[in-house]
Amino acid sequence: MTPNLPDDDFTSGALSQLEAPSAETRARKHLPRIVSALVAFVVTLLVLWVGLPLLAPVYLILTLVAVQEYTALMSLRGIPIRKRSIWVAAVLTLPASLPISYPGMQPLIAGVSWREALIGLFALYLVALELANPNRNSLQAVVFSFFGYLYIPWLFGYIITLRYTPDGVLGLWYLTLPALAVVATDVGAYIFGSLFGKRQLAPLISPNKSVEGSIGGLVLAAAVVGAALVYLERRAGLHVNVYDGLLFSLLVSSAAQLGDLFESLLKRWAGVKDAGVFLPGHGGVLDRIDSALIAFPVTYFFVTLVILR
Amino acid sequence: MTPNLPDDDFTSGALSQLEAPSAETRARKHLPRIVSALVAFVVTLLVLWVGLPLLAPVYLILTLVAVQEYTALMSLRGIPIRKRSIWVAAVLTLPASLPISYPGMQPLIAGVSWREALIGLFALYLVALELANPNRNSLQAVVFSFFGYLYIPWLFGYIITLRYTPDGVLGLWYLTLPALAVVATDVGAYIFGSLFGKRQLAPLISPNKSVEGSIGGLVLAAAVVGAALVYLERRAGLHVNVYDGLLFSLLVSSAAQLGDLFESLLKRWAGVKDAGVFLPGHGGVLDRIDSALIAFPVTYFFVTLVILR
Repeated sequence: MTPNLPDDDFTSGALSQLEAPSAETRARKHLPRIVSALVAFVVTLLVLWVGLPLLAPVYLILTLVAVQEYTALMSLRGIPIRKRSIWVAAVLTLPASLPISYPGMQPLIAGVSWREALIGLFALYLVALELANPNRNSLQAVVFSFFGYLYIPWLFGYIITLRYTPDGVLGLWYLTLPALAVVATDVGAYIFGSLFGKRQLAPLISPNKSVEGSIGGLVLAAAVVGAALVYLERRAGLHVNVYDGLLFSLLVSSAAQLGDLFESLLKRWAGVKDAGVFLPGHGGVLDRIDSALIAFPVTYFFVTLVILR
Repeated sequence: MTPNLPDDDFTSGALSQLEAPSAETRARKHLPRIVSALVAFVVTLLVLWVGLPLLAPVYLILTLVAVQEYTALMSLRGIPIRKRSIWVAAVLTLPASLPISYPGMQPLIAGVSWREALIGLFALYLVALELANPNRNSLQAVVFSFFGYLYIPWLFGYIITLRYTPDGVLGLWYLTLPALAVVATDVGAYIFGSLFGKRQLAPLISPNKSVEGSIGGLVLAAAVVGAALVYLERRAGLHVNVYDGLLFSLLVSSAAQLGDLFESLLKRWAGVKDAGVFLPGHGGVLDRIDSALIAFPVTYFFVTLVILR
């Protein structure tokens, strides 16, 4: 009833079981989210189509803001994050994420990607940084900064990898398909959840999500991916068999939902001590890319291991 | 004076500055460590020489015990570690760590190693596991279990990689060199520290270590690696130029000392709330392999990027 409803993931700071709100309340809360998701989706398609010249700056901006948000979330639990170090690592992750099919790219060593070496190098750097000036929070700084790097810049880098896998033409489709699946999951979960939502999916983490919505997300993702594959087969000669397409849509939709839930867990954890705290300058980039962070890597491995083999 | 001196890293559970003990006390504390290190070194050489048939079980046993110790350390801070999941991931890391030069091995995808994919897969599994049954400790369980996997089985896997880089013959030498450097660092730090130790290296983390000992470790490592390279040039025709050899010994010795300090930080952090607590069944495997965990990956990247290019 009040016009300033808090973000649905922040309705309670504590890990407590809440009653599911009515369908009307859910609709009121989710509508702006759907609209902004659709607008973002059109912009996303443009960025994906243009490729590296737009994808690189967008990757960097979204990553830097999301890392800032992660840092703010962790600071609520008193955990210091080496934000600037993660930013530098993110800048390095961008070129490192270009696949070896990209003109001029080579693996660092036969069989070892630059991305693998970056993980080791960054961990070593974080450890050396803390040991030079150790304090009570050093271990948490290492562990959570390292996790923050992997969770945001490193995982998000798969968008770059996927855009040029196996090449710049087919890669556009292989990147558009999971983008469609992620949006379809969001929309499907909203519609099904509003209409049929009864059983809570994860009452402790995200009380507004229902099992029915989750299934709706899977169903709409399968339908949209299926339609896109039929279109792509006629338009671009891209052939993916029915079972692979169905498996793909289920995997990516599940991954998107997992990413969403995990980010809720992160926020819920950070909010435990300060119920209802709003992050200063919290632009919500992490909220927008949480599904993509998991869905795109899953797509990359599915495409390379199942479709391209 | 008391015969039951506590382990040097546990003299104080809190991060407090302590006075450096006398040279005599240091000698008394370090002698068993040096002896056990030398015994371990001879056994290690045998294992390295035989290769996979012995290296695989030794990798698995040491990893499983070290993960158990890490789990016990973290439990002192109330952090649940998904120990059995890490064990399963460790078993998978063993074959994944074979380099593509090993007969029959191929990268998972061109330019992407199995090791890179394992990181993503394991993170995804941990997240899904916690989301299926979330609680107050879920986020810490994900973050610290993931870190534990990377810190122990994943990093230690580079021993397997290095043994067969670039092949099973030269790989033996490239694995023996850092093993020599790690032991030389330990022995050099002990001797120099006992004789000249005045300035504390890291008073907050490991009050018994001195700057002089650290330099002594670097010096003895350089001398031993230099001698080994001269021998190897005559015996095995392995040519490494003087500057590469010196750089290598300094890097690996620094990495070994960093690994040692980081493990002390881990123990110090775990002991904050319970000063003087001894871990049940703490066999000290992590104490023994802490230097190797950092030194061997550094060696791998140095060998592949500098020596073999």
